[in-house]
Amino acid sequence: MNSHMSEFKGKLIAVEGVDGSGKSTQIQLLRRWLESQRLKVFFSPWNSSELVKNATRRGKKKQLLTPTTFSLIHATDFADRYDRQLAPMLKAGYIVLCDRYIFTAYVRDTVRGCSPEWVRELYSFAVKPDLTFLFKADLEVSLGRILSGRPALKFFEAGMDLNLAPTLEESFKIFQGRLLDKYVELKDEFNFTVIDANKGIEEQQAQVRKCVAGKIDLARFALPR
Amino acid sequence: MNSHMSEFKGKLIAVEGVDGSGKSTQIQLLRRWLESQRLKVFFSPWNSSELVKNATRRGKKKQLLTPTTFSLIHATDFADRYDRQLAPMLKAGYIVLCDRYIFTAYVRDTVRGCSPEWVRELYSFAVKPDLTFLFKADLEVSLGRILSGRPALKFFEAGMDLNLAPTLEESFKIFQGRLLDKYVELKDEFNFTVIDANKGIEEQQAQVRKCVAGKIDLARFALPR
Repeated sequence: MNSHMSEFKGKLIAVEGVDGSGKSTQIQLLRRWLESQRLKVFFSPWNSSELVKNATRRGKKKQLLTPTTFSLIHATDFADRYDRQLAPMLKAGYIVLCDRYIFTAYVRDTVRGCSPEWVRELYSFAVKPDLTFLFKADLEVSLGRILSGRPALKFFEAGMDLNLAPTLEESFKIFQGRLLDKYVELKDEFNFTVIDANKGIEEQQAQVRKCVAGKIDLARFALPR
Repeated sequence: MNSHMSEFKGKLIAVEGVDGSGKSTQIQLLRRWLESQRLKVFFSPWNSSELVKNATRRGKKKQLLTPTTFSLIHATDFADRYDRQLAPMLKAGYIVLCDRYIFTAYVRDTVRGCSPEWVRELYSFAVKPDLTFLFKADLEVSLGRILSGRPALKFFEAGMDLNLAPTLEESFKIFQGRLLDKYVELKDEFNFTVIDANKGIEEQQAQVRKCVAGKIDLARFALPR
């Protein structure tokens, strides 16, 4: 059950960060850059599996999920996606890009009250990325980015179910601040490459590309002619 | 997250055993006996939660589940039921009767290929029962019991997805035999009370009742008048 990096010909790159940190924009730009070089690239967003989507949606709506159940639903979803998409594509020699990976669960589930050891063991079936970018922005910046794109914060991204504060904005800052603290705690252990996400999009992307090109022999991943 | 027995006023009794071992009959008879004494009793079957029932059903049908995902779906279901039914009823001082408990997952998931340590950690949020009965029958007896009640074995109870043997009956014996071996391995560590399930229903039930009355001060669980 435990997969080890050694069996995979491919490379795994993950982006992590709080909501509004700009990580999704950055990984999409990275994806386009790699694809434009005709490389074997596979992109996978967080929670894209159909298998338990309905369960999560229903559970969230009814607000009847405890931290353990909430965590397990997401782990199930991830395991399904991991076994059917990520691991096969890594075996097939692709560069796999993940918009959020297991560290999202590490930080979110522990902030919600699960034990860190339990969550780590839960996700122990998944390989660690070859490269993990942590996008670290001030919370005001993240908040501004989200609200520039849509009228209001979402209930769960603000952590409103945790009863931290009466308003969405206040709750967002407390909740996402806690997530950010957890991310920073994991930084050294999992060798995150921290990107200053207060900077401009192009500046960040240049840093990301430089790092990817420096760590991965991209020519090895060229699509067959 | 980790609940400890000490915080619960209630008592937890679980029955375990392979399909056709007669455990469900026995726990129903125990339930009636306890209820006839006007005691606070709560009964919970395995996998009764609505939350992920559809996901499991769909996943099983499509046969697209790996052992990890299969295990996690069941754990999610159990966690939901545990947090919303079992733990509250134990806190409320009920005698909770479980037709299968975490040991079913221990044996089934490890037979399917998950690591035993991973499965144990997965279910570490759940308290251990005060009393666990293991119903141990010869596989021929179990098989006979199932087939006396309906025309054929089910695909999953025969472990047909594991490709162990071409026919349902052969596969059943191999698969359920492995489960039985795993149960026996856990016997001492988790202090199972082993019941010889080759014996008659009444004889087994007498033994179960004697054991329950000996270990639990039943008068403490009387319903208020």
